[in-house]
Amino acid sequence: MSGVRKPGAIVLIASALLFGVSAGVAVSRADEGASPIDGVKLPKGYRDWKLISVAQENGRNNDIRAILGNDIAVKAFRDGKRPFPDGAVIVRLAWRYDSSPRNDKVFPAPQSFVAGAPTNVQVSVKNAKRYAATGGWGYGQFEDGRPNPDEALARSCFACHQKLEVLDPGTDLVFTAYSR
Amino acid sequence: MSGVRKPGAIVLIASALLFGVSAGVAVSRADEGASPIDGVKLPKGYRDWKLISVAQENGRNNDIRAILGNDIAVKAFRDGKRPFPDGAVIVRLAWRYDSSPRNDKVFPAPQSFVAGAPTNVQVSVKNAKRYAATGGWGYGQFEDGRPNPDEALARSCFACHQKLEVLDPGTDLVFTAYSR
Repeated sequence: MSGVRKPGAIVLIASALLFGVSAGVAVSRADEGASPIDGVKLPKGYRDWKLISVAQENGRNNDIRAILGNDIAVKAFRDGKRPFPDGAVIVRLAWRYDSSPRNDKVFPAPQSFVAGAPTNVQVSVKNAKRYAATGGWGYGQFEDGRPNPDEALARSCFACHQKLEVLDPGTDLVFTAYSR
Repeated sequence: MSGVRKPGAIVLIASALLFGVSAGVAVSRADEGASPIDGVKLPKGYRDWKLISVAQENGRNNDIRAILGNDIAVKAFRDGKRPFPDGAVIVRLAWRYDSSPRNDKVFPAPQSFVAGAPTNVQVSVKNAKRYAATGGWGYGQFEDGRPNPDEALARSCFACHQKLEVLDPGTDLVFTAYSR
């Protein structure tokens, strides 16, 4: 088996040298990856964080989502503290909004939607000084654990959250309300 | 002020004696309350538990929901372990499935739904021996922190989960799949 593997390993190294990325390297680089412009990383252990709320988007997103927060963010939500203190991190996970024909057979009527394949994870980090130009928030979007490198997409985060603040002042640019 | 309050306090005590319940007493009794038949209680600190997945139900439910689990349940989900070990507890929180006209003004098209007022919390507790007659699961539904006293409702939990097991064997009567 090692004789079979060696050529593969050489190809892997060669492609890593040529393109700066390979399946093996990508995994270790994912943890290091930061979003363009704001340099936001996917926080370690975020999947274990506490739930803030849930939501569902139709249209192009067509997703169902959970919003989690680190302890600083969750405490601010629960206390109703705005603006959020530095160090607050909010993570929005989203999955395809999938009909569940299986559940619909159990329930009295077709009605059930569940989380399908993951789409992306968006991270908002509060640092009033570092991100002063964007309302104190740094943003990043991640797919499969890796930051989306599109700078236009990265800029669109603040553009959208800023619209919210104009429309509904006092949210500190945060869409989600805490669900008890 | 104390002169004004005294008659109120007397009425409160009197109503507590007469009906065994009052606004003040209800709060302290909520933590003690157990579901009919299975005697399931609302677990302390469940709102801090880790997220398993999210879902959305139309029809009579018209809700959006989050499914949380204690550490035993989450570990079993992540490891793909079925049946769930004793001590696994799954909590399903649900809120009204509310359109968000505010978000719709920010987004390019009307598309946004959020969690509204809480509806109820359903709790599933695994204990293969204690709940042998109902597939190893004990069930309870809670509104405003208090167990729903309706025995027919309590029995309907297993009836519905049993249908799932017939339709899709190997789920250990659990609808939710873990979302990564």
